[in-house]
Amino acid sequence: MSTPKKVCIVGSGNWGSAIAKIVGANAKKSPTFVDRVTMYVYEEMIDGKKLTEIINTTHENVKYLPGHKLPENVVAVPDLVEAADDADILIFVVPHQFIPRLCQSLVGKVKPTCMGLSLIKGFDRPEGGGIDLISNIITRLLGIQMAVLMGANLAGEVADGNFCETTIGCNDKAMAPVLKELCQADFFRVVVVDDRNTVEICGALKNIVACAAGFTDGLGLGDNTKAAVIRLGLMEMIKFVDTFFPGSKLSTFFESCGVADLITTCYGGRNRKVSEAFVKTGKSIVDLEAEMLNGQKLQGPITAEEVNVMLKAKNMEDKFPLFTAVHKICTGQIKPALLVDSLKNHPEHIELDHRSSL
Amino acid sequence: MSTPKKVCIVGSGNWGSAIAKIVGANAKKSPTFVDRVTMYVYEEMIDGKKLTEIINTTHENVKYLPGHKLPENVVAVPDLVEAADDADILIFVVPHQFIPRLCQSLVGKVKPTCMGLSLIKGFDRPEGGGIDLISNIITRLLGIQMAVLMGANLAGEVADGNFCETTIGCNDKAMAPVLKELCQADFFRVVVVDDRNTVEICGALKNIVACAAGFTDGLGLGDNTKAAVIRLGLMEMIKFVDTFFPGSKLSTFFESCGVADLITTCYGGRNRKVSEAFVKTGKSIVDLEAEMLNGQKLQGPITAEEVNVMLKAKNMEDKFPLFTAVHKICTGQIKPALLVDSLKNHPEHIELDHRSSL
Repeated sequence: MSTPKKVCIVGSGNWGSAIAKIVGANAKKSPTFVDRVTMYVYEEMIDGKKLTEIINTTHENVKYLPGHKLPENVVAVPDLVEAADDADILIFVVPHQFIPRLCQSLVGKVKPTCMGLSLIKGFDRPEGGGIDLISNIITRLLGIQMAVLMGANLAGEVADGNFCETTIGCNDKAMAPVLKELCQADFFRVVVVDDRNTVEICGALKNIVACAAGFTDGLGLGDNTKAAVIRLGLMEMIKFVDTFFPGSKLSTFFESCGVADLITTCYGGRNRKVSEAFVKTGKSIVDLEAEMLNGQKLQGPITAEEVNVMLKAKNMEDKFPLFTAVHKICTGQIKPALLVDSLKNHPEHIELDHRSSL
Repeated sequence: MSTPKKVCIVGSGNWGSAIAKIVGANAKKSPTFVDRVTMYVYEEMIDGKKLTEIINTTHENVKYLPGHKLPENVVAVPDLVEAADDADILIFVVPHQFIPRLCQSLVGKVKPTCMGLSLIKGFDRPEGGGIDLISNIITRLLGIQMAVLMGANLAGEVADGNFCETTIGCNDKAMAPVLKELCQADFFRVVVVDDRNTVEICGALKNIVACAAGFTDGLGLGDNTKAAVIRLGLMEMIKFVDTFFPGSKLSTFFESCGVADLITTCYGGRNRKVSEAFVKTGKSIVDLEAEMLNGQKLQGPITAEEVNVMLKAKNMEDKFPLFTAVHKICTGQIKPALLVDSLKNHPEHIELDHRSSL
């Protein structure tokens, strides 16, 4: 029996609190983990009281997940270094722009044997252009191994205990069962795959496809067209991973992080919704973000731009007509109605036996 | 240059007429085909006139695809043997229960070099139980080679010329480009794969999954659960093909016949709709068929039963918990609410590295 592992959750938003319910309960019942799970909470005042104190007395994150009890062994800590002290597993679940600053404050304070688990969707934008994976950034800054957890997991529904699935991408065979034991619940089923990059990249690229699906909805093109757009988007996701992060497995795209999350995002999801409105109203993405998202940035157009930089650099825009069209539509270079035209000579339709290499 | 190929379409319903628009136009413009395309039309009287005569004078199938012009080189013929005379390509697009009788009347009257293309979704039920593929039945009866065409193709939207994709499963390398040339249009993009059985089986199994998706909707379980149900259904489709029709390719499930058609069927589609009503109203499938489908049989429950016979015979019900639960729910053996419980210990969640064999 090895020493019980100490777990720290870095983040306490909607998704962080939902996963804390599961992780806290598992830590409590399994000898693999130390009972006490720390949760780093950015301190805020709520009606004159500190959020950490509210969480530690009422066991409810009244601001980000009201109406749900957290397990009592989940302890809110306002100081990141203190929360992460001696952690064997660090679960990162914060908006991705906070990662560099949070990691900076942890440099030299994390055990080298610590394993990170990122629940953060989206890419980072390095200075030279293109994309960088959040898990790579954390590894570079902290020198720790990383795994990721992604899937069709709307936080509210997970908190409610509705049945769903998720995917953990973990290339470390020894840690895979440990992370599964920490994150799986009766209603939250985990599949671990040793293909971390693919799992993480799916979580970002799906938002580009959701924009295309939303344009299709806005144009009133019907079910056949939408299905084709989603499928072609999936094929470009596969080709993108194959081109820029070779060594991925086709089967990973069948996991919750792939096809399931893509479907949910293309039928529900804010990227789809705003993109539909973009076509129907003729307003700009920026205006719609202000109106529909309280000024928050939509992920799809940003990711489409980052991806476009990479495709241009490799002179491969025409191999990814859907990704390219979404970027051009979002930036006003072409009309939404041209989406479909740009797909008519898709490489998927031209190359017979095109998939034999996969 | 080989002799131009004569094409006959066996069937003239909604989907048969929509495909006749494309096939007729392609035959007209390409030297690969004889201009004149025959269409076998089951003769009916419409306002005192023969349907074939209406089609051949107005070039509109006023009963099954009103409002659309068929190309003038598509000629309606009320006699099947005459329509199929000397055909090099026979396109079968009739309700599947008519196939045995139609093929009987063609026995000995079809060229042995003729190629069949089936657009018929669903299985046949041989006397010994289990399932039989429609294309296999035609091959057995007529001794001709078969290909199939399946995809996310609602007939009305194809007739309207909305952009979509389809999949042709054709194991004959020489005929693959010929069938593609015959069926592809600017807005109707064809991918040919040499994995015919998988293409055909997807078109039937998806309806079982759509029932499960409908139950989920009826139970109000939310987006995460529905995505999980669709994904697990897809995994059972893959495993079913792998078990009963070995030699399939995983990549085929990424084609329009696979994931795209599945998505459309699980979000739109009558199987989803009736299954949702089944949960919400508590009425039987038979009663709902009478109310919602004018007494037509719903495909999903029938296919679930056929598949269940095969699973039982191999003692594999527990390897396909979703297919099994749908059958038990449709036949009143378990309550719809138990669908999710039956998925909690899905083989997909238990076997680590379970996909490494594919």
